[in-house]
Amino acid sequence: MIRNRVFSCFVFYAVLLVIKMYVIAIITGQVRLRKKAFANPEDALRHGGLQYHREDPYVERCRRAHMNDLENILPFLFLGAIYSMTGPSLWVARIHFLVFFLGRVLHSVAYLLALRAPTRSVAYTVAQIPCVSMAVQILMTVATYA
Amino acid sequence: MIRNRVFSCFVFYAVLLVIKMYVIAIITGQVRLRKKAFANPEDALRHGGLQYHREDPYVERCRRAHMNDLENILPFLFLGAIYSMTGPSLWVARIHFLVFFLGRVLHSVAYLLALRAPTRSVAYTVAQIPCVSMAVQILMTVATYA
Amino acid sequence: MIRNRVFSCFVFYAVLLVIKMYVIAIITGQVRLRKKAFANPEDALRHGGLQYHREDPYVERCRRAHMNDLENILPFLFLGAIYSMTGPSLWVARIHFLVFFLGRVLHSVAYLLALRAPTRSVAYTVAQIPCVSMAVQILMTVATYA
Repeated sequence: MIRNRVFSCFVFYAVLLVIKMYVIAIITGQVRLRKKAFANPEDALRHGGLQYHREDPYVERCRRAHMNDLENILPFLFLGAIYSMTGPSLWVARIHFLVFFLGRVLHSVAYLLALRAPTRSVAYTVAQIPCVSMAVQILMTVATYA
Repeated sequence: MIRNRVFSCFVFYAVLLVIKMYVIAIITGQVRLRKKAFANPEDALRHGGLQYHREDPYVERCRRAHMNDLENILPFLFLGAIYSMTGPSLWVARIHFLVFFLGRVLHSVAYLLALRAPTRSVAYTVAQIPCVSMAVQILMTVATYA
Repeated sequence: MIRNRVFSCFVFYAVLLVIKMYVIAIITGQVRLRKKAFANPEDALRHGGLQYHREDPYVERCRRAHMNDLENILPFLFLGAIYSMTGPSLWVARIHFLVFFLGRVLHSVAYLLALRAPTRSVAYTVAQIPCVSMAVQILMTVATYA
């Protein structure tokens, strides 16, 4: 399966996006330390006292960016893998994966830098187009078996 | 793999559930616009002013419905795929997938319409039964190899 | 695929971690009932009245533990499956899966028991090491195809 070129192409972008999600988690942790805003009292105690058990607007922004990734990148990991098995041409598949990848990278940048609306929403919408396209193509492929 | 009838049956319901999750995301966005309740100041500014950077009870309800889907539908995408490889009979497998599918659709309807308790909890519990059943069957299959 | 020993080993730990996530969901529900702290008014009404539609610090702690699992265990389900296809030796692969498994179990215990910092953060970091290792090895395998 890993030697199938469409599947490999999917895996390449998918793993980069998983790493991108990990990076957002690391950024969140660093912002918590720098802003001294901890979700748990035990963390606050270790870093100066219970007064740092508090929310911070930028930490919450990082968490929303991460949450949106969970909502969209995780389903892509499934859809992309199944779509790769339906026998699409390599260049059509690559366009699907690349549009999703670029859309999600722009989404993260727009979120973390608080770029002017609707940059983030446009990035989200653009990234959803290949997902819906893959979902429809998968359904057409398996509809006869289900 | 996609030509395996159990796997195709799984993929059919799994993709429908992914689409169902996307629909909840779209509903959340529409409710944010209609109620003018935005999670980000840049979105509020675009839609009338910073006073609309606020929470709304129904938006929060939509987000809880979505979150519960992440907690349950995403693990199903994994369990269902692996379970399909363990060689179950088609009709037993289909019952697993169908019960999960119907349970999760009812869960979303019960959440978004705030149906009387315990409708939502019953739907959640019913949908978990095939998941636990698949998890146990997978463990029995691989226990000898791990 | 399920007869491949590396893949079976991965599936074994992966399914145990999915069950661990389910257990956290069940604990959260039990804590809600015991503390009478419900996220939805319809649930509060069923259990004594609208005054129980409220937040509780320990319920929120359970939800953060669950959320962190979604952020880390769900990507592992993907990375581990793909990594198993890249042909690693069984004992190297098993170390990857076992370190992740033990790290995540410790993470949950540290979270739910509010163990002294940095126990939970160390568990999180240890569990991420095999994930990053698998991500890098997958990228090296598919880079030539993508």
